[in-house]
Amino acid sequence: DAEGDDISTEDPWQDEEYFGSYGTLRLHLEMLSDKSRTETYRRAVVSNSVSLTNKVVMDLGCGTGVISLFCAQLARPSLVYAVEASSMAEYTRQLVKQNGCEEVVTVLQGRGEEVELPEKVDLLVSEWMGNCLVFEFMVESVLSARDRWLREGGVMWPSSAVLVLVPCQAHDYFAEKMAFWECPYGLDFTPLQPLAQQEFFTKPKFSHVIEPSDCLADPCDVICLNMYTLQIKDLEEITGQFHFPVETSGTFHGFTAWFAVYFESLEVGGATVELNTGPHSEPTHWKQTLFMLDKPVSLNVGDCVTGIIVLRRNPVWRRHMSVTLDWNIISDADKCQAKRDKDLPDVEV
Amino acid sequence: DAEGDDISTEDPWQDEEYFGSYGTLRLHLEMLSDKSRTETYRRAVVSNSVSLTNKVVMDLGCGTGVISLFCAQLARPSLVYAVEASSMAEYTRQLVKQNGCEEVVTVLQGRGEEVELPEKVDLLVSEWMGNCLVFEFMVESVLSARDRWLREGGVMWPSSAVLVLVPCQAHDYFAEKMAFWECPYGLDFTPLQPLAQQEFFTKPKFSHVIEPSDCLADPCDVICLNMYTLQIKDLEEITGQFHFPVETSGTFHGFTAWFAVYFESLEVGGATVELNTGPHSEPTHWKQTLFMLDKPVSLNVGDCVTGIIVLRRNPVWRRHMSVTLDWNIISDADKCQAKRDKDLPDVEV
Ligand SMILES: [Ca+2]
Ligand SMILES: [Ca+2]
Repeated sequence: DAEGDDISTEDPWQDEEYFGSYGTLRLHLEMLSDKSRTETYRRAVVSNSVSLTNKVVMDLGCGTGVISLFCAQLARPSLVYAVEASSMAEYTRQLVKQNGCEEVVTVLQGRGEEVELPEKVDLLVSEWMGNCLVFEFMVESVLSARDRWLREGGVMWPSSAVLVLVPCQAHDYFAEKMAFWECPYGLDFTPLQPLAQQEFFTKPKFSHVIEPSDCLADPCDVICLNMYTLQIKDLEEITGQFHFPVETSGTFHGFTAWFAVYFESLEVGGATVELNTGPHSEPTHWKQTLFMLDKPVSLNVGDCVTGIIVLRRNPVWRRHMSVTLDWNIISDADKCQAKRDKDLPDVEV
Repeated sequence: DAEGDDISTEDPWQDEEYFGSYGTLRLHLEMLSDKSRTETYRRAVVSNSVSLTNKVVMDLGCGTGVISLFCAQLARPSLVYAVEASSMAEYTRQLVKQNGCEEVVTVLQGRGEEVELPEKVDLLVSEWMGNCLVFEFMVESVLSARDRWLREGGVMWPSSAVLVLVPCQAHDYFAEKMAFWECPYGLDFTPLQPLAQQEFFTKPKFSHVIEPSDCLADPCDVICLNMYTLQIKDLEEITGQFHFPVETSGTFHGFTAWFAVYFESLEVGGATVELNTGPHSEPTHWKQTLFMLDKPVSLNVGDCVTGIIVLRRNPVWRRHMSVTLDWNIISDADKCQAKRDKDLPDVEV
């Protein structure tokens, strides 16, 4: 039927749009201008510069090649395969030459799933993280490249990744999008509030910046990915649990999510390097992601927010997913009785 | 041929996309949250509240109906026709009722070109301005409604409009998009500069915020539109001249444009109300528009920047236009000799 045809003639990976956007400078400039991100990758290279000697490296989705150039200039790998699917690869080659690294860095244009290397690699490094950690699902390409090209005992950077969640206040955002309609210019615009609810609160707010003081509990790692054992099929549905003892009484407007990734040392016992995109770390271009509740709820110290989070990969549009949060508040007064049992609507991202 | 067909089957006004976006809250919230804009319209109503008594008003592209509600609540018009083409009209009706104005304000869903009123109006008010004043070309609908429904001697709000231009510095933007590539993280990324030039400087930068201190000369009105005499065909090509004596030595990175509109009094000799979106006024959601030169140029006090600006309406996509700036620098030392004659590339907006 027509609907089925529509879908089958379009690319469920939307690669033309996806790699097209990485063929322009805008996204690369945004990523390079993110010092916290870029310098963490440099720090991982610098703190492993001795161990990287004579190692073979693959830098997957290398973009402008900045990580490959760090490897070539700050360590002595025997070879770095810089793999980039978008048309940026052509410029990456020029940048490698311009920086005198063409004997160490080989640029290959292709996807992680398809690229052919002459040898296996000791280190697979990639910056694949998106909003809520896995959005864009570039991680699939990384896992595929790992299974094809990482030698037994080779190292993955990042080596592990966590999705962090916290129940939070969002007074400014709530005021701007919802309370606003109560009396703008002395008028009653409350009939627009259901529309505002639908338009602003049923989708995640990317690029949210949460202040540490807006966290109503200690943030928790709710999902942990081991980059050595994670399988592509595991990405279809990723589930985490949470149990937040409330530390600050306040208005519970929603949940905020962010991620951290870890770069293990190439040496046993060496220091792990961390990139944390949360509110207690340097700001990054990812910022945080806010999921608003249907209605704000008051929380008191002693209450607990418990529940589960499920990331369900879209069965058709493979770079997208829905995020579902099921939660209860268990009040101090009555630990056994759920005061509230509320689903957030499924959120397509 | 196929190309011709492609164009003929699509709507050159892109109305589905255009009015679709006004059917959601985002743009209406942005406009309502712009206090400078919204309060100027209120000020025009308040300062004419006596003269508005028993007048018939049309509020074209009324959106949520805020201007109509100002008229109904702060003056005593006999009737306000609130005309809105997007599906927001249905909510506007609810808001009129919610605010007890349904006896004065009649909401009509339709375009300015098509709407039918039972009578001519004394005042046609509209907020039709876009980036560089005319972008979106909603002004055409206003002119069409004027010719059909404004009575002889009726008043237009705005009554006139100007596009203002100034040669300016843009050190931060230049550093962020162009100088950045010189040495990020100790690397030479200058091979990307031609790409950066193409991607960031050949299109206007909307939502630019210029500081008064970045103006290298006194801003000038380069285009003036009289809303009583302006004809739809005049919109095809709008030309202005400029002659800027440089007041501050500095780096000439580009031209910044913004607009001002004027609301004449309904009474002879009454005060004119002004909405100015420039850097010396309260910020608005329009901000300013920056046109970058291919290369920065040094300017000294005593130099003159002269030239012409042409807004050419796109012959196919009727809400779009190209902006061309032709300019020379006449230096103090040699007033008669053009040091430089440089075209900005045509800029599609
Ligand atoms: Ca990314
Ligand atoms: Ca507008």
